[in-house]
Amino acid sequence: MSDIAHLGHVELLTDKFDESLDFFTRVYGLKEAGRDGASAYLRAWDDYEFHTLKLTASDATGIGHIGYRATSEEALLRRVAAIVEMGCGVGWVEGDLGHGRAYQFRSPAGHLFEIYYDTKRYAPTQGDEPALKNTASKFTGAAPRRIDHLNLLAPDVEAIEAFMTAALGSKVTEKIVLSDGTLAGCWFTVNNKTYDLACTNDHTGVPARFHHVTYATDQREDILRAADIFLENGVHIETGPHKHAVQGTFFLYVWEPAGNRVELANSGARLILDPDWEPIVWTEEERKKGQAWGLKTIESFHTHGTPPAAKDH
Amino acid sequence: MSDIAHLGHVELLTDKFDESLDFFTRVYGLKEAGRDGASAYLRAWDDYEFHTLKLTASDATGIGHIGYRATSEEALLRRVAAIVEMGCGVGWVEGDLGHGRAYQFRSPAGHLFEIYYDTKRYAPTQGDEPALKNTASKFTGAAPRRIDHLNLLAPDVEAIEAFMTAALGSKVTEKIVLSDGTLAGCWFTVNNKTYDLACTNDHTGVPARFHHVTYATDQREDILRAADIFLENGVHIETGPHKHAVQGTFFLYVWEPAGNRVELANSGARLILDPDWEPIVWTEEERKKGQAWGLKTIESFHTHGTPPAAKDH
Amino acid sequence: MSDIAHLGHVELLTDKFDESLDFFTRVYGLKEAGRDGASAYLRAWDDYEFHTLKLTASDATGIGHIGYRATSEEALLRRVAAIVEMGCGVGWVEGDLGHGRAYQFRSPAGHLFEIYYDTKRYAPTQGDEPALKNTASKFTGAAPRRIDHLNLLAPDVEAIEAFMTAALGSKVTEKIVLSDGTLAGCWFTVNNKTYDLACTNDHTGVPARFHHVTYATDQREDILRAADIFLENGVHIETGPHKHAVQGTFFLYVWEPAGNRVELANSGARLILDPDWEPIVWTEEERKKGQAWGLKTIESFHTHGTPPAAKDH
Amino acid sequence: MSDIAHLGHVELLTDKFDESLDFFTRVYGLKEAGRDGASAYLRAWDDYEFHTLKLTASDATGIGHIGYRATSEEALLRRVAAIVEMGCGVGWVEGDLGHGRAYQFRSPAGHLFEIYYDTKRYAPTQGDEPALKNTASKFTGAAPRRIDHLNLLAPDVEAIEAFMTAALGSKVTEKIVLSDGTLAGCWFTVNNKTYDLACTNDHTGVPARFHHVTYATDQREDILRAADIFLENGVHIETGPHKHAVQGTFFLYVWEPAGNRVELANSGARLILDPDWEPIVWTEEERKKGQAWGLKTIESFHTHGTPPAAKDH
Repeated sequence: MSDIAHLGHVELLTDKFDESLDFFTRVYGLKEAGRDGASAYLRAWDDYEFHTLKLTASDATGIGHIGYRATSEEALLRRVAAIVEMGCGVGWVEGDLGHGRAYQFRSPAGHLFEIYYDTKRYAPTQGDEPALKNTASKFTGAAPRRIDHLNLLAPDVEAIEAFMTAALGSKVTEKIVLSDGTLAGCWFTVNNKTYDLACTNDHTGVPARFHHVTYATDQREDILRAADIFLENGVHIETGPHKHAVQGTFFLYVWEPAGNRVELANSGARLILDPDWEPIVWTEEERKKGQAWGLKTIESFHTHGTPPAAKDH
Repeated sequence: MSDIAHLGHVELLTDKFDESLDFFTRVYGLKEAGRDGASAYLRAWDDYEFHTLKLTASDATGIGHIGYRATSEEALLRRVAAIVEMGCGVGWVEGDLGHGRAYQFRSPAGHLFEIYYDTKRYAPTQGDEPALKNTASKFTGAAPRRIDHLNLLAPDVEAIEAFMTAALGSKVTEKIVLSDGTLAGCWFTVNNKTYDLACTNDHTGVPARFHHVTYATDQREDILRAADIFLENGVHIETGPHKHAVQGTFFLYVWEPAGNRVELANSGARLILDPDWEPIVWTEEERKKGQAWGLKTIESFHTHGTPPAAKDH
Repeated sequence: MSDIAHLGHVELLTDKFDESLDFFTRVYGLKEAGRDGASAYLRAWDDYEFHTLKLTASDATGIGHIGYRATSEEALLRRVAAIVEMGCGVGWVEGDLGHGRAYQFRSPAGHLFEIYYDTKRYAPTQGDEPALKNTASKFTGAAPRRIDHLNLLAPDVEAIEAFMTAALGSKVTEKIVLSDGTLAGCWFTVNNKTYDLACTNDHTGVPARFHHVTYATDQREDILRAADIFLENGVHIETGPHKHAVQGTFFLYVWEPAGNRVELANSGARLILDPDWEPIVWTEEERKKGQAWGLKTIESFHTHGTPPAAKDH
Repeated sequence: MSDIAHLGHVELLTDKFDESLDFFTRVYGLKEAGRDGASAYLRAWDDYEFHTLKLTASDATGIGHIGYRATSEEALLRRVAAIVEMGCGVGWVEGDLGHGRAYQFRSPAGHLFEIYYDTKRYAPTQGDEPALKNTASKFTGAAPRRIDHLNLLAPDVEAIEAFMTAALGSKVTEKIVLSDGTLAGCWFTVNNKTYDLACTNDHTGVPARFHHVTYATDQREDILRAADIFLENGVHIETGPHKHAVQGTFFLYVWEPAGNRVELANSGARLILDPDWEPIVWTEEERKKGQAWGLKTIESFHTHGTPPAAKDH
């Protein structure tokens, strides 16, 4: 087993806290696990940890921090040593409602990461006990099942590739290389999921930008139904449902009220089990064909991130 | 990363080779990758290796052997050393059409296993190149995507539990413990899949029996469609489609012409990512409720295996 | 166009009104349109009329009455004349919250029917306006879309066949004829739907018994999801999800808290468009094969109805 | 019952007969029922008539003729009388492989229609008998179930509205009215289907143009799978899968090798049962929002038809 077990949680900043919280709980289908200070802690019905999304009131939007869970205390310390060596360490923090002490560090693009081992497991409260004891809590209709991945923006994707590989031991599963040799996008994983973090390039000059966070649904049909739910609730649907060429994921992107992009996705039965997997490399020419079934990628997908840049939609 | 990467292939014996091959290729949806001697080598469209099912003409039915792929040559040798130490080693073989040398060994119930690292990747032939280069070969309609797991029968499931843990480093994800303390069923995994091998108890006295092999579909709808395809082709549908309580998998069981049980399954977005996962323990009382949505487990599911025992259906 | 346009509504009696209402609204997914006296008026999100299910507190269970909508006032009067001629008329009533005057009559087995033309269309209230103006009201997640059909029990199905044909001009689309020539089941429609009423035989001696009422979902996946919702809410799932051989409908049967059987069903793209459609006749032998994919029909399906008979489950 | 039962068949012209036939049979999933002269007769697996698509080799593309089936011989003659009265009659023809005599007439835009009653039912040949006798022939995997509708282009949609209403007794279920009062699109039905023919405006000056023909699938998932099948087979996917705002249909449009546009669609449980249905009117403003989930209608959808006009893609 590698040192890092999985993506744990993402902290999202919102300058419209009440509207964002209403979106994530009533419309998107996450559950509130707790609250402290300016933050609400949210989780999907089958996330095993206390929370996977920390929603924090702020005067900005975008990402607060990204947490990965180590496989053991020893693994955590091995990673910390490697990160300190890399010179990008920030230091230990006490953790918050959902987990114990964590070591924080920064990506070359400025994104704040943390790794931790000591976690708080979700304990169903009365009325939330699942019917089947191999699920974490009560299934709740058309809601996503678990956190899946996030997508960051960075001016230098190669620097992020080096960073993720060294700091977390992530493997690259797919990438986009432009005709001039630039690495335009890179997909990483620490386990058998096809990716848990993606990074695409960004030339706005705004540091540490965020592209989207994604939860996984059990079936593609859940995403088609969610599209109707978003439509009925006046949510801005940016693009989809459709199928990505890269990674083959069925997707739907919306913007929550504060403008952070949120995805629902389904990967079918696809996993990366091959221990010698060689990254799939997509060329600029291939990406011009659009998504798997021919949908052209809409302009805002290349420009909109949070916090917004001047030229943002 | 653990020493074993994933379940690689299963060899199935059939005393009706032509009918079985017709079933697996024309009806069930696997592709023939090659043939030698008495065997046809089959794979699902997105299996990355040359084959995942070796179908061998025989005067019996049931399982020939089970192959797991190691994560490296060093990991392979580590496992071999552990297995030799356990005293259940059989020895090295040269491998067959689909992989290089492999070390064989036997489970306490007599099932022949092998582990290998050197593999033959599937190279699409002309006309079988995928449209999307992150898939192994051309998608073929309602066909399963990749091998998922197999289920063995054994008189002493606890012995299999000890064996799998020691020989392959497998983790137990779920189990059934009867009121008298007997371990009646046990589900194992070597990676983030919820299981790649299950073992349930069998009191027929026939050694090394086989319960079923399973391929994964991308969606539950693929399984509903497959049910109609099986119906149209006169395949014996034993039970399903329905949802297992144990593991929560959506399932459909049929018997191929020689009587070996074959499953199609879909796990939705469920994975075991938690490094400290504690096995879910199902009681005898809980199992009496039947499957997740109340379907009573049919009698043949408890009695039929291959090779058949006297009291078999 | 025939005189009768479609099945309009069903009145269901319950001796557990609060629990039944909670089931139909919170779990099954109907909406409350209004209430008067002992009755709540419910509808699915895309039913165009004020109500399609009238739930009435009673000291019994089973069916109150069944309403069909005529295609015009003239058609209504033509049907009334035919019914009076048949000698089974009961007389005009004023209608209730959901429609104007209706003519009531009884089936040979005692079921109370009514036909009406003047109806009250559903007018969405604030917060219930649909996003797409070609739907009746706001789509609500995993909820059924519209009323589909009902199933009655009768000691003499041939008498019901004659009655439905004469009184409503219904066509028979499928039927079950036993080896001794008895008509054991009969499926009727007044339009292009494959059936809007079924009748199966019943030898309990209890008059005017009810087997089930059904709402249609857009997809089979909605029914799989509903199965999980029923499971989580402790609803008694009687049988399914599976596919009927007769009519090919994908189904799921549950019992609402008072014991009335309720179904969710999906017919895919199947319609009866052929003006000369000859009824499909299923033999006793064929019915012994169970449902389409081999599920054996469970015993309670043949015995349980409402109101219950002595030997009922 | 109205005089016209349903859309019967469409004749499509192709200047690439072999490629078109290969597309419709091997990729799209229709079956060949027969052949004569320059035509192949095709049908979906559950179409009850001999054919629903007549594919004819020609030096042009577009539509040959459109056939509707009357509900009886008397109904046929009533329609013929009305059509003769309208002055758009062409005359009787003997019929072809799939039906008996038919009366032909022309729409104001020049499209050739015919109505007939005497039909040839499909009789399954050996090996094509269905497993369930309430279906017309063997279910064949990811194939569409039955013909659904077609879409014509015309310079004056109001003239088509008057024509369809008078000639076939069609009802208008939805329409698009531009800000200047122009009827830009109109959807018609002769039965409970939400539409069997649509007409949208066209200013190319080319007479009797054809926009697309559509077959219905049982589930939306069939369409997602078909998208992968089209992708693997190099078929030009024009747009979709997505959901129409108008009519709420889930859709996917491709071009067959000769350039004729072909759709797969699923309407869920939506039917028009209301005898007093008032047409839904969509404004120019509303149509600017794109499809139901926000997809912008691509340019070729407004310009490409067959036969192509000068400015066609």
